[in-house]
Amino acid sequence: MTYNEIDITSPYSEELLGQVQAKLDDLTKPPGSLGRLEEFTKLFCCCQGSADAELKKMHIYTFAADHGITQEKITPFPAEVTPQMVLNMLSGGAAVSVMCNNAGIGFNVVDTGVNYDFGAHPLLLQCKTVNGTRNFAREPAMSQEECDAALNAGLNLAKGTTADLIGVGEMGIGNTSAASALYSMLLGLDPEETVGAGTGSAGELLLRKIEAVRKGVNLHYQDWDETAIDALRCVGGLEIAGMTGMILGCANRGIPIVVDGFIASSAALVAMKMQSDIRDFLVFSHISNEKFHRNFFKNEGLHPVLDLDMRLGEGTGAVLAMQIVQQAMNCYHQMATFSSAGVSR
Amino acid sequence: MTYNEIDITSPYSEELLGQVQAKLDDLTKPPGSLGRLEEFTKLFCCCQGSADAELKKMHIYTFAADHGITQEKITPFPAEVTPQMVLNMLSGGAAVSVMCNNAGIGFNVVDTGVNYDFGAHPLLLQCKTVNGTRNFAREPAMSQEECDAALNAGLNLAKGTTADLIGVGEMGIGNTSAASALYSMLLGLDPEETVGAGTGSAGELLLRKIEAVRKGVNLHYQDWDETAIDALRCVGGLEIAGMTGMILGCANRGIPIVVDGFIASSAALVAMKMQSDIRDFLVFSHISNEKFHRNFFKNEGLHPVLDLDMRLGEGTGAVLAMQIVQQAMNCYHQMATFSSAGVSR
Repeated sequence: MTYNEIDITSPYSEELLGQVQAKLDDLTKPPGSLGRLEEFTKLFCCCQGSADAELKKMHIYTFAADHGITQEKITPFPAEVTPQMVLNMLSGGAAVSVMCNNAGIGFNVVDTGVNYDFGAHPLLLQCKTVNGTRNFAREPAMSQEECDAALNAGLNLAKGTTADLIGVGEMGIGNTSAASALYSMLLGLDPEETVGAGTGSAGELLLRKIEAVRKGVNLHYQDWDETAIDALRCVGGLEIAGMTGMILGCANRGIPIVVDGFIASSAALVAMKMQSDIRDFLVFSHISNEKFHRNFFKNEGLHPVLDLDMRLGEGTGAVLAMQIVQQAMNCYHQMATFSSAGVSR
Repeated sequence: MTYNEIDITSPYSEELLGQVQAKLDDLTKPPGSLGRLEEFTKLFCCCQGSADAELKKMHIYTFAADHGITQEKITPFPAEVTPQMVLNMLSGGAAVSVMCNNAGIGFNVVDTGVNYDFGAHPLLLQCKTVNGTRNFAREPAMSQEECDAALNAGLNLAKGTTADLIGVGEMGIGNTSAASALYSMLLGLDPEETVGAGTGSAGELLLRKIEAVRKGVNLHYQDWDETAIDALRCVGGLEIAGMTGMILGCANRGIPIVVDGFIASSAALVAMKMQSDIRDFLVFSHISNEKFHRNFFKNEGLHPVLDLDMRLGEGTGAVLAMQIVQQAMNCYHQMATFSSAGVSR
């Protein structure tokens, strides 16, 4: 199965929602008093298609890739930081590794295009066919084959995963530029609106970043076929394509996906443009401090779980949101009912 | 030591903040990119007075008591639900018990005034001198001795706790009325503004609730000495007094406190009115769905961690926030530094 053959329909049904609601309302608490935790329970159960759905295993996939757009000198960190941070993730020293270890969440780095030869590592999934994108300010970031390979890598991982709640995050110096370009193309917005500081671009650097993204968007608008996939190929990133594939593949299997931050959300946007019902499988973990992220959610009518001024990516926001979804499911399965506990209604 | 002898000063110092910031900025992430998690780390380290502060043990104390105001027929649940829910908490079936068990957080119920004889239970701390408050719409909720006993119970628990992060929550049918009356008295607001649905008061019930709170506030305003303690005695609750004592006692020992929801926040307000610097020891866990809670935070310039439409109390919001503080401290201690990981700055 390729991404073109996937056809997603909303997992929600009146009948199933009614069953889950009845179970929730039988738990020893005022009806609705767990607030959005009850929403997460409904989403999880509907994705699995059962009012008895259980959350047994959580896993974060952090997609990593390099970006040709860094040639425009738009980031304060050099491109070498991408492989350095991947190695840091593999050895357990990155924030996402620390958080996953402590939360009992499985973790892998997925290399869909880092400009470095890592060799084998038990936590590293090697899926790259190219060592990074081209500079999208001057030419398409990917060929169709490269883009498809990254998408299919995510899709294949989704097929094989044994987890029932998946988080997607990323690492890639330059990737806020790619994400901003995607938001601009897919939502018809000037880069002035969609470009922010990223890992810390300010002053001259930020102006250059806006200009580079604008140049790329203007260039590729000219022969864009108006599909999300084509925008992804022209201005996106190999890790963004990987996350898009993972989201499509997980939704296709009824596995809900927790979307990390600004860049992961751009992958979710591509997936939503391809299959609009896919949004019903997604939990947006947090509103990043990255400028456009809050407006994105507002414009799309989406309600992220957390708002903690984070802007690290990697999957760190996804971990925190997954712990909350886990507690929602713990309550759903482990709380007493009014009758079992002898509590008056 | 009694609550009157406690004198709290802010734990923050420029020197210590600088040390913690330097450690945070040496971790392999863009400066500030963990957002509010870095704020929680600073709070925790400053409370313990060390840039090497470690979070080893978390504990939730859920204070329970009954309320004479229920005689005004202002809640959909009968007063018997207070002891029933305490028993449910003790047997592990309540939301807070489930969440604590799964998060590795210690848990106790503190009985500061439930109208029931529980007998001994390993998770129950028996601290009551009276079986509930009087009806504050007609007379003071507590005598000074009763109020002091509940405050001192919390204070003594704080003295003895071995945890280094404490969460306070509550259970008590009728206690949103007591909390609203406290907000009204201490902030000079009409009960129309401070009274909300609680566990589910609507229509006639809600109008009766507003009227009962207004009657009580008007009655006690007449000979109120304008201290927070006197307001607590007149319209508060025994669990609210217990939480106030716990907050004062923990801050006095340099232990930060995670405040649960609408009712726990009213205890924090009493403590802040007694000792204004105590706010620097507090993490407000979440904005409850209870009507006035959001305005309270806005008016006081406070920034809760979560906004999830929860309105269950018990300590459930505190558990979720404590897991986030724990991840902040995990990152602080377990992440690699730029030099140790060989990552370029």
